Amino acid sequence: MSSMLGTALRVSIFGESHAPAIGCSIDGMPAGVPLDLDELQNFLDRRAPGRDATATTRRETDRARILCGVVDGHTTGSPIAAIIENENTRSQDYDELRRVPRPGHADYPARIRYDGFNDVAGGGHFSGRLTAPLCIAGGIALQALAQRGIRIAAHIANLGPQGIPDTPLNHMELDEDQLSRLSSHDFPCIDEGAAKAMRECILDARNDLDSVGGVIECVAYGVPAGLGDPMFDGIENRIARVAFGIPAVKGVDFGAGFSAAYLRGSQNNDPYRMDHGNVAPRTNNAGGILGGISTGMPIVWQMAVKPTPSIGRKQQSVDLDAGCDADLVVRGRHDPCIVPRAVPIAEAVCALALLDLILESLGNRAL
Amino acid sequence: MSSMLGTALRVSIFGESHAPAIGCSIDGMPAGVPLDLDELQNFLDRRAPGRDATATTRRETDRARILCGVVDGHTTGSPIAAIIENENTRSQDYDELRRVPRPGHADYPARIRYDGFNDVAGGGHFSGRLTAPLCIAGGIALQALAQRGIRIAAHIANLGPQGIPDTPLNHMELDEDQLSRLSSHDFPCIDEGAAKAMRECILDARNDLDSVGGVIECVAYGVPAGLGDPMFDGIENRIARVAFGIPAVKGVDFGAGFSAAYLRGSQNNDPYRMDHGNVAPRTNNAGGILGGISTGMPIVWQMAVKPTPSIGRKQQSVDLDAGCDADLVVRGRHDPCIVPRAVPIAEAVCALALLDLILESLGNRAL
Amino acid sequence: MSSMLGTALRVSIFGESHAPAIGCSIDGMPAGVPLDLDELQNFLDRRAPGRDATATTRRETDRARILCGVVDGHTTGSPIAAIIENENTRSQDYDELRRVPRPGHADYPARIRYDGFNDVAGGGHFSGRLTAPLCIAGGIALQALAQRGIRIAAHIANLGPQGIPDTPLNHMELDEDQLSRLSSHDFPCIDEGAAKAMRECILDARNDLDSVGGVIECVAYGVPAGLGDPMFDGIENRIARVAFGIPAVKGVDFGAGFSAAYLRGSQNNDPYRMDHGNVAPRTNNAGGILGGISTGMPIVWQMAVKPTPSIGRKQQSVDLDAGCDADLVVRGRHDPCIVPRAVPIAEAVCALALLDLILESLGNRAL
Amino acid sequence: MSSMLGTALRVSIFGESHAPAIGCSIDGMPAGVPLDLDELQNFLDRRAPGRDATATTRRETDRARILCGVVDGHTTGSPIAAIIENENTRSQDYDELRRVPRPGHADYPARIRYDGFNDVAGGGHFSGRLTAPLCIAGGIALQALAQRGIRIAAHIANLGPQGIPDTPLNHMELDEDQLSRLSSHDFPCIDEGAAKAMRECILDARNDLDSVGGVIECVAYGVPAGLGDPMFDGIENRIARVAFGIPAVKGVDFGAGFSAAYLRGSQNNDPYRMDHGNVAPRTNNAGGILGGISTGMPIVWQMAVKPTPSIGRKQQSVDLDAGCDADLVVRGRHDPCIVPRAVPIAEAVCALALLDLILESLGNRAL
Repeated sequence: MSSMLGTALRVSIFGESHAPAIGCSIDGMPAGVPLDLDELQNFLDRRAPGRDATATTRRETDRARILCGVVDGHTTGSPIAAIIENENTRSQDYDELRRVPRPGHADYPARIRYDGFNDVAGGGHFSGRLTAPLCIAGGIALQALAQRGIRIAAHIANLGPQGIPDTPLNHMELDEDQLSRLSSHDFPCIDEGAAKAMRECILDARNDLDSVGGVIECVAYGVPAGLGDPMFDGIENRIARVAFGIPAVKGVDFGAGFSAAYLRGSQNNDPYRMDHGNVAPRTNNAGGILGGISTGMPIVWQMAVKPTPSIGRKQQSVDLDAGCDADLVVRGRHDPCIVPRAVPIAEAVCALALLDLILESLGNRAL
Repeated sequence: MSSMLGTALRVSIFGESHAPAIGCSIDGMPAGVPLDLDELQNFLDRRAPGRDATATTRRETDRARILCGVVDGHTTGSPIAAIIENENTRSQDYDELRRVPRPGHADYPARIRYDGFNDVAGGGHFSGRLTAPLCIAGGIALQALAQRGIRIAAHIANLGPQGIPDTPLNHMELDEDQLSRLSSHDFPCIDEGAAKAMRECILDARNDLDSVGGVIECVAYGVPAGLGDPMFDGIENRIARVAFGIPAVKGVDFGAGFSAAYLRGSQNNDPYRMDHGNVAPRTNNAGGILGGISTGMPIVWQMAVKPTPSIGRKQQSVDLDAGCDADLVVRGRHDPCIVPRAVPIAEAVCALALLDLILESLGNRAL
Repeated sequence: MSSMLGTALRVSIFGESHAPAIGCSIDGMPAGVPLDLDELQNFLDRRAPGRDATATTRRETDRARILCGVVDGHTTGSPIAAIIENENTRSQDYDELRRVPRPGHADYPARIRYDGFNDVAGGGHFSGRLTAPLCIAGGIALQALAQRGIRIAAHIANLGPQGIPDTPLNHMELDEDQLSRLSSHDFPCIDEGAAKAMRECILDARNDLDSVGGVIECVAYGVPAGLGDPMFDGIENRIARVAFGIPAVKGVDFGAGFSAAYLRGSQNNDPYRMDHGNVAPRTNNAGGILGGISTGMPIVWQMAVKPTPSIGRKQQSVDLDAGCDADLVVRGRHDPCIVPRAVPIAEAVCALALLDLILESLGNRAL
Repeated sequence: MSSMLGTALRVSIFGESHAPAIGCSIDGMPAGVPLDLDELQNFLDRRAPGRDATATTRRETDRARILCGVVDGHTTGSPIAAIIENENTRSQDYDELRRVPRPGHADYPARIRYDGFNDVAGGGHFSGRLTAPLCIAGGIALQALAQRGIRIAAHIANLGPQGIPDTPLNHMELDEDQLSRLSSHDFPCIDEGAAKAMRECILDARNDLDSVGGVIECVAYGVPAGLGDPMFDGIENRIARVAFGIPAVKGVDFGAGFSAAYLRGSQNNDPYRMDHGNVAPRTNNAGGILGGISTGMPIVWQMAVKPTPSIGRKQQSVDLDAGCDADLVVRGRHDPCIVPRAVPIAEAVCALALLDLILESLGNRAL
């Protein structure tokens, strides 16, 4: 059940990098949700490469084709399926890849897992390209949530070996304008200075035939208090389960997260106060979640993205067929940093986890 | 489905802090697995309070009673159920708790989630006490894994505001003796000096009517390469989903984890070399996992534990019935730090996630 | 995941006939549902043996002990667990049973499935005794449904080789009085003459050291139109999946069911008419279900119960250890017919399937 | 999760009768299973209309396009997805259908369930056309099972108001030739005389602008003893859950099934005897299943198919917008009997349920 997520909203992601097509099916979406397909395509374009000088020069169009589940701009309540045709399929010889695994990629464990039958072309099902159908499902979820007044935004919290920081979202309440601006930026930062420094850091890495990683912060505004569950299906469990489905994500935390381990209880506890008749925690170290349930504060989480494993430098590997050491130079064009393109993916992850939770809480008759 | 985990091995955790009993059912355990019930009780005792001067002085016996699924020291293949009778039930008046929520606890969101019907006594189903049945299931999983040559160990990676560090497990291969010693320590550290400093840090916090948190590192040795799956049911997704089920866990990462975000690709990629005919990555920044699948290196992960929210100091809260601000002093004896007791829980989490994965991969006829 | 049912309401059934206890956990029940524990016990007593002269003379008390999830007569929203202590455990020598499998029982396939480690005493986890915890969960579901105006009733539709028929429920709308009377009868028939003839048929079989089966009809009144789903999670799929979990059930059908195969479309289609502003199908061959979704008519289904496999006559079997033919006489007291005791079980099945469906449709915040 | 089936092998069915496409994704198929796509297409052609004079004269080509998960004639271990483009989409005006529901169809409950947003064109997601992607998944499963020596066959057990019977499969062991012949027949009967009588019965119904139903018997040969589970995930539960996903199926039974209710225990129990060192039940009233687990005998089950609800005669219905009675004549070409076309669908159902069970039992590394 590896490529499926959700309990009330079940998403199945399918495809391989060089297969005829990639896509998803979405089961459990309520009927009557209005969908703006142009807005969906705009969202998909945010993760497409080629928007910014720092990304790979390869261009994909990634046009989503809705196969079913949507009539006259509204969901029908039946499964939605959508595909993206792969234009560039199986042209190359991938024999070397099968034999000499790329460090930091899934080549080696996948070969064992699938007895060598996995599709290695372009990374097969392990390719970052599979985040495109995840974003189709996530983009639809974002629209469904927006109708309930829930808005999700993400940005690069920090990037590169020096951890160049952007302004944290956790401490600001973004208005509609700021949210729109953030999502339309070519480089998803709040602070223009940070964006400039990050761009330089990425170009430096590219010049060195190397790559850099970073941390993405994602916030959901408008989630009412009382949604979620204790133990294994709370908000944290659900977001983390989906977020670790993104290749390159190696850590997920919530609110103060790992930093909370370095606070005392008196600092980390968020004190309650009344504010115009509403319960209003004065800080949000909990990231809007206590006991797996929303507190009414913004849901705040972060994910750590490792540096792109595909680098231009020669690397040490092994020849699995010959059983000896081998050096490897990964050819082709690579993103020296996938963090900017992973920002909308974080929003998709968050939207899918929250919509699933809401549908489980309020039922599939509810939106 | 909040209090259930697993896909091939389904564990249902039930109970409330002051209900007649807490317990678990475990569905999907293969038949014929030998179970040493004394060893299981020893494992449960590791999370019980009162083992070390730094913990709460309250003593629980927490004797697990196996109800079914085990005959003549072997699993029967039918569901295993076990309960722990609660000795100390519903004696107090919890009306204030229902009215004035404790900061950092689930009191407030749970009241909304359950329309006030949730059991507040002792924290109800949100109590850390529910990690006892999790440890029953986890302790059984640890024995099943040990039979397949998989050993799991955890320790306190660092503790307190200064982050007092223990020797990292990631860089050492522990032998059987070291593993036994680590699990029999009162204070689960490798380095005695670190243990001493951590104890002092905890006692300082207690003196200040405050609390501290920390980070736990957990390692699984002996997981063969090729176990796991891409996307949403890989090793990371499974461990994270269960780990966030522990109250107080606010972050989970794997291998270099969040630190990987601060490395360049050339540093973070683990180079492959052959070693006596086997593929042997020379470093383990991946934490033994690429593409959700095991690489054959130890599985390494960390979880951030926030400082205990129950502290002796007066805290700001609100009176939910009166709709006004209110101060709160949490009475009773508290752990100034739950990190040491959470170490066996981390092992339980890891064992349950890995056994579930192995049963899904190799079938329920397989152990 | 064999002994778990439900998607929104997850029930885990555990226990073996001669283990210390049998029981269940119920995850996903909304908070605040009032539970009358005496009414629950009365429901359990309906499946207990010894109520009627036709059943085995062995008496079980089967008192359910609620472990958690209920406070002050209301559900807390956390998992409910309940157990029944087994009083009569592992006293006999079951070696012959392990060696010489009883025809019509699971002894032989279970021995292979569990490599001989399954608990054979009293049938282990395959015992009809496991329907007791199913009835605990079902009895709770019945109360939750009654609060929403949904009432469930079952009776023996026909019994024995001649198929002695009772008045079909499908063609009558029972009022509250009739429902109460049906559930308080010692022998669950509407027609007293039918009950008398069925009793004689059972006693005849007992005299012949033989057994008889029958068909149970179950109806749910008050299910509003529009609940359910097409394909694999509709009302039929859910009821059938749970009903086949009862040992001895070999067939399930809905409305006209198998008889529909012998009708022409013009006879089988239920014509619609308006009745005081409501859509009212004039017949109910569909059993209240079209496309997996309720039509607003009563949900009607039947299950075929095979004759009790435990009979007093000598039967042909094999000695699995010696690898040769062997004759077998099953000792002990047996029910010559379990159909009467299976009537409340059918109601439990129906209640669990419908409550699960309703919670998935309307959410876990909804009752 | 309505249009998904399976636990280890998860199939998602999507599409609507007049949407751009219908299709399925299949998650959990092991890597390295050889797939013959021509054989798959032949299987799909068996359910296509127009093969026999008794079926609708409309012809669909129903060519399956594999999108991913298959490379060089073998499964890759990643999700398989396949679609069939709908050639005939949304041409008609379906306003009347939305207003005046067809008796025996899901039109009325679906309108309520989806608040009128469901796609009514051609029956939308409720159309029998959705059995085409079910057959894609089932056809792949059949090939995977055949490799393990498991062969599945189905035929029309009886048809029409008189229940014209074919030779029962339960009492014969078909050889490879007989299996091939059965699956290549235009009219899936063993007995040519029965086939002829059934054809006449169907043509009679067509002449009367009416329709007939029937019962399909399906057998799986070569399932080894010991596969399955007690309670809710046994062979019966799994097959029934999927079979009731076929529109028009109103009953499912196993082995003697409903007839078992009319036998005495001494007749219904299958006696064991040894046969050349193997345990060989002498009859198969159990349908190869005891306690949810295979006995090593053929798995035998039946499903009742109601007469096609679309008939040419004028029928009583209601106008849901006007709130008054209305007569309805369903236009277009209809199958006067869908039973022959449902035969390969029964095989698909059986194959999917059994392969799912085998993968759960033996793991996803196992084929």
